[in-house]
Amino acid sequence: MNEPIQIVEVGARDGLQNEAEIIETADKVRLITRMIDAGARRLEVASFVNPKRVPQMADGEAVIAALPDRGDVSYIGLCLNKRGVLRAIESREGNKRGVDEAGCVLVASDTFGQRNQGQTIEEGVAENRDMLRLARENGLVPQVTISAAFGCPFEGAVPMERVVRLAAEMAEAGAVEIALADTVGVAVPVQVAELAGRVREAVGPDVRLRAHFHDTRGMAAANAWAAIGAGVTVLDSSLGGLGGCPFAPNATGNVATEDLIYLLETSGVETGIDLEQAIAVNAWFAGVIGKDLPSVVSRAGIPQGWRATSQDG
Amino acid sequence: MNEPIQIVEVGARDGLQNEAEIIETADKVRLITRMIDAGARRLEVASFVNPKRVPQMADGEAVIAALPDRGDVSYIGLCLNKRGVLRAIESREGNKRGVDEAGCVLVASDTFGQRNQGQTIEEGVAENRDMLRLARENGLVPQVTISAAFGCPFEGAVPMERVVRLAAEMAEAGAVEIALADTVGVAVPVQVAELAGRVREAVGPDVRLRAHFHDTRGMAAANAWAAIGAGVTVLDSSLGGLGGCPFAPNATGNVATEDLIYLLETSGVETGIDLEQAIAVNAWFAGVIGKDLPSVVSRAGIPQGWRATSQDG
Repeated sequence: MNEPIQIVEVGARDGLQNEAEIIETADKVRLITRMIDAGARRLEVASFVNPKRVPQMADGEAVIAALPDRGDVSYIGLCLNKRGVLRAIESREGNKRGVDEAGCVLVASDTFGQRNQGQTIEEGVAENRDMLRLARENGLVPQVTISAAFGCPFEGAVPMERVVRLAAEMAEAGAVEIALADTVGVAVPVQVAELAGRVREAVGPDVRLRAHFHDTRGMAAANAWAAIGAGVTVLDSSLGGLGGCPFAPNATGNVATEDLIYLLETSGVETGIDLEQAIAVNAWFAGVIGKDLPSVVSRAGIPQGWRATSQDG
Repeated sequence: MNEPIQIVEVGARDGLQNEAEIIETADKVRLITRMIDAGARRLEVASFVNPKRVPQMADGEAVIAALPDRGDVSYIGLCLNKRGVLRAIESREGNKRGVDEAGCVLVASDTFGQRNQGQTIEEGVAENRDMLRLARENGLVPQVTISAAFGCPFEGAVPMERVVRLAAEMAEAGAVEIALADTVGVAVPVQVAELAGRVREAVGPDVRLRAHFHDTRGMAAANAWAAIGAGVTVLDSSLGGLGGCPFAPNATGNVATEDLIYLLETSGVETGIDLEQAIAVNAWFAGVIGKDLPSVVSRAGIPQGWRATSQDG
């Protein structure tokens, strides 16, 4: 038996962020609740960004207020700056359930960082240091995602030594978990194994490694498997593969939760999430947004005689 | 620099076999020719099956007669029985170019074998022994694909020891190359690595290992990479991911040639096939069959700053 791998369900945030049509708050809450029922225990539920820039995420506080008040589930709010962390803190004030984690973001490319959040890499490092401290001091789990870690839509290749150095700085700044994100969907397994291995060494044994893949070029499962081999224990994914890639309009987006469950449970690795239930959530949510979701496992179905590792014993 | 990996282009046969609308012979020949121009050097070009059962393949002899007469390219004809091998031999008679390889098929499941070609496993072993001998005696490269090697659409799991034993028998019968085919698209990398490793050991160093993956559940790139790690040096794929999965009607089929080129060339492994040209063939052929082909790499495009390994030096 292998060590279990934790899946972070990001469908309600990363998955929906680029949907043109606004999804109702109740449907977002239902998506989150149904994925918890299926077994998800960490979920990205909101983004504390400017509602004018991302209207789909404008109801963040309303979503959070309606979440099931469970002690065994950890809710993540995405934070791009200190203002975001302050809203995450606010979500917990006055006995409210709120979010549990401040999901900070550091972009590993100057051009991408400046276009996406108006920050150079070094400005991002300084901001994230403050964000992580602020989160920790207010009882939020301080974690950070290094985005564009495998490539930048504008600059192309991103040097590994830069990402390793940024990860070490974030560990030093108090991040308890660091994610390597292939935001553009360009990575291949050999690259993932090397970068994750080098980051694993650089950040020390106390920092958890997470990885975030997009299936833009069909490499997500291969990359996830390579990441696990290099010491990553947590993977992001979205139900159905919700979420496009803003830099490749015709491409698929996040790796699908169903596809990761299939990969892992077939390989003898527990995820704790039930594949059949996830496929049912997919079918329901496709009705909500009025189109099929990309997950190939949901489309192909569970094979004859298949048995999940999580069902054993 | 890693060892190069050979890609066998199967688009014109496996890719088209299940297309409902008959593709014109000239378009099949053009598909093959354009893939040769892009760098492919081994291609599956025809299937010597009963034209009444597979009308799409009825023009096999006409396709072969129209192929470029090149000495640096190897053409494969699929053979399901001795009658098929005799047609492969006939394709070369009277100074005709013909095919170079008899691509034999052994099904690793009784139920699937009986439904697909009216043979139990043991009947298939006996038939393939005769087919391989017949091919060799007549100057055709004798090679065999073990289909349903990772799972059967009717029986579910297929025991590894059975596939290892069948591979050893085929090696002993004179196959110079043995392919492990995930016909149903159910395999995961851990399984591929184990089976390919065990087969590698069982067949001895003189037999080449090939693998054939379907991307039915998004695992094709992961499986291809695992196969290479276990000693596989040849991979089947189809331009654009042509070819559905008859057992999962909504699912994608063969792994796309473009996706494999992207995986390998980005990883420092030469394929000899030009990605840009393959994407152009995809665009042209999508027009021929009047629908988009599944390849995600063709849909997403080549990333900023990308450089193929085959372009180096």
